[in-house]
Amino acid sequence: MLVQELKQESRVSVAPRIIGYGECLPGSPVTNEQMEDVLSIRKEWIEKMIGNDSRHFAVDFSKRTIAYSLTDLCTAAAEEAIEQTGINPQEIDVIVLSTATPDHLMPATVNLVADRLGLHHIQTYQIQAGCSGALQALDVARHLLVGERRYALVIGGDVCNKYMDLTRDFTKLRSSELINYALFGDGAGALLLTTKNCDGLEITSIENRFEGVGEEPGQVMNWFGTVPENIQELSKREIRKQYQSAKEDYKAIEKRVPIMTDQVLTTLLEERNWKREDVTYFLPPQLGWHMTKAIIDSLGLSLDATINCVQETGNNGNALPYLQLKKLHGRLKPHNKVVGIAIESSKWIKTGITLEYKEGETNE
Amino acid sequence: MLVQELKQESRVSVAPRIIGYGECLPGSPVTNEQMEDVLSIRKEWIEKMIGNDSRHFAVDFSKRTIAYSLTDLCTAAAEEAIEQTGINPQEIDVIVLSTATPDHLMPATVNLVADRLGLHHIQTYQIQAGCSGALQALDVARHLLVGERRYALVIGGDVCNKYMDLTRDFTKLRSSELINYALFGDGAGALLLTTKNCDGLEITSIENRFEGVGEEPGQVMNWFGTVPENIQELSKREIRKQYQSAKEDYKAIEKRVPIMTDQVLTTLLEERNWKREDVTYFLPPQLGWHMTKAIIDSLGLSLDATINCVQETGNNGNALPYLQLKKLHGRLKPHNKVVGIAIESSKWIKTGITLEYKEGETNE
Repeated sequence: MLVQELKQESRVSVAPRIIGYGECLPGSPVTNEQMEDVLSIRKEWIEKMIGNDSRHFAVDFSKRTIAYSLTDLCTAAAEEAIEQTGINPQEIDVIVLSTATPDHLMPATVNLVADRLGLHHIQTYQIQAGCSGALQALDVARHLLVGERRYALVIGGDVCNKYMDLTRDFTKLRSSELINYALFGDGAGALLLTTKNCDGLEITSIENRFEGVGEEPGQVMNWFGTVPENIQELSKREIRKQYQSAKEDYKAIEKRVPIMTDQVLTTLLEERNWKREDVTYFLPPQLGWHMTKAIIDSLGLSLDATINCVQETGNNGNALPYLQLKKLHGRLKPHNKVVGIAIESSKWIKTGITLEYKEGETNE
Repeated sequence: MLVQELKQESRVSVAPRIIGYGECLPGSPVTNEQMEDVLSIRKEWIEKMIGNDSRHFAVDFSKRTIAYSLTDLCTAAAEEAIEQTGINPQEIDVIVLSTATPDHLMPATVNLVADRLGLHHIQTYQIQAGCSGALQALDVARHLLVGERRYALVIGGDVCNKYMDLTRDFTKLRSSELINYALFGDGAGALLLTTKNCDGLEITSIENRFEGVGEEPGQVMNWFGTVPENIQELSKREIRKQYQSAKEDYKAIEKRVPIMTDQVLTTLLEERNWKREDVTYFLPPQLGWHMTKAIIDSLGLSLDATINCVQETGNNGNALPYLQLKKLHGRLKPHNKVVGIAIESSKWIKTGITLEYKEGETNE
């Protein structure tokens, strides 16, 4: 049935193309100076360890309150992407949202976004993933764009609300904790895809490979359900140990991510039969600026040919590839070739995408 | 490219068919008598309120420990499904896992299962959803089975580990808490799909619709990250209120789910141009036995034509539709038509599937 559907449609439709771009970065950028004031994280330490200049937070650290939910950020990003295309939101057939940090486990955040957008009867899907989620969601969305489906909304976002303890005395954070506060940021990005024959950034291939057989995770994010009533019998130290939500092995990340990036790049270029010099723009993984810069250098890429955002936005996980694509958007010219790569260090997943800017065809 | 790929393949492949079935229900079934002994939940109360006879738990209530992770259950179910088909696991191209209760937020459980199965380089995707997840995962998997992909492993499972407080004095549970302990169970189901031309249960259509615009959620499952260190300043009552993981509106569920089931059934039959009497087997939503029985009666279905499992397994969410399909498997004859329906009351999502048992074709 799938094959028949596609055959019928092949006269009028093209491979999925990105035609709308949206983002939502909450509040004003929080500078390294402000991090020093509010969180007692030394500016020089951030500059040395991470290299980012700013980040956005869905939490208000000075008031110690949550200012935005993931639903808020994803809805705003989606609205911008839809608005840019001028289509009627009711024409959207499917939404795919990816995140590591949903507002709840149920309902999936994608349904809360669909509610805000007023999209009754829409088909919704939510991908649970870290940094690999954005390209996985795009992959799922492009495969769902068959049959009568014409428009897919793809959203990626993350918020740190739940893995930062806003009641802590920030002057007493250990450096393993500090690095999370300083590295991550919050945000959402959104793209609108269509198979309609029009100008757009065509997705020509997506790679998504699990590489972690027998390997320890490089990053873990735990969730906790019911907090046991006997928690009051535990010491502060035991609580901190038992309810540690985020854990990273930065040494392993630093070592493996550049290698995995190189592997994905090679695979994608071979698959498309592209040479490196054929590629107009590269979207490298956005871990933190020092690590991203090291990857760019190790691949021998010119900085001008890369699109980066982490230095300003912080690492906001599932939003990053969409923020990079949005930043790229204004520069695109027909036949420009683009390669994007995102690596998830949780259990070592490598993802990559190739795209090509195409004009609507008058004859097929 | 997608269209071209499919065109090339249309000579040799068929629409995705289910060829392998697996399940894992942890431990022995816990009877209503045992629920009375261990959890102080009265047998008569369960019989009156829910109607289930037993359920399986990934936790050991008598020892008050966690006995199985979701990864354990999903891996075992997957192994059974693969074994049944006799294929080499390395031939599997993609895994799609759905759950509302992943072991962690990162790594996604699907990657931990891929690790256990030793499937290096495999493509993994995880759907975050409640009861709608199983059919969403099947929908994603069948759409991914294009191009060179031939085999997809689809897994659904849930565990209640994190939303039950094992330290509680079970004699002091309120009835709103009791019902969760008595209604839910743990488990995983798995299916193996292929587009190879062979005997199997062909997926002919899948419906997945968000219906909750402007509606309050019927079910919420919260997650908690870092537990604040000031938790010790809270009273037991405040802790219970602030960290309540699962909330349900059973009245709304009871009212809406039968209506939504009827709607999906009508849509699916119209889409396939099937009459009700054309359908050999119905797989109704498995909320709890009383509710499922009421739906069967309200639809005017004969009990013999329905496949149910909740009475024995408890409501194990993302596993249920796969457990029903496994139970159905042995009874299938060529050209049998099947309709399955699952309703997620979180934010009101209706899902349904039509299937037809087909023999491998010698001429296409």
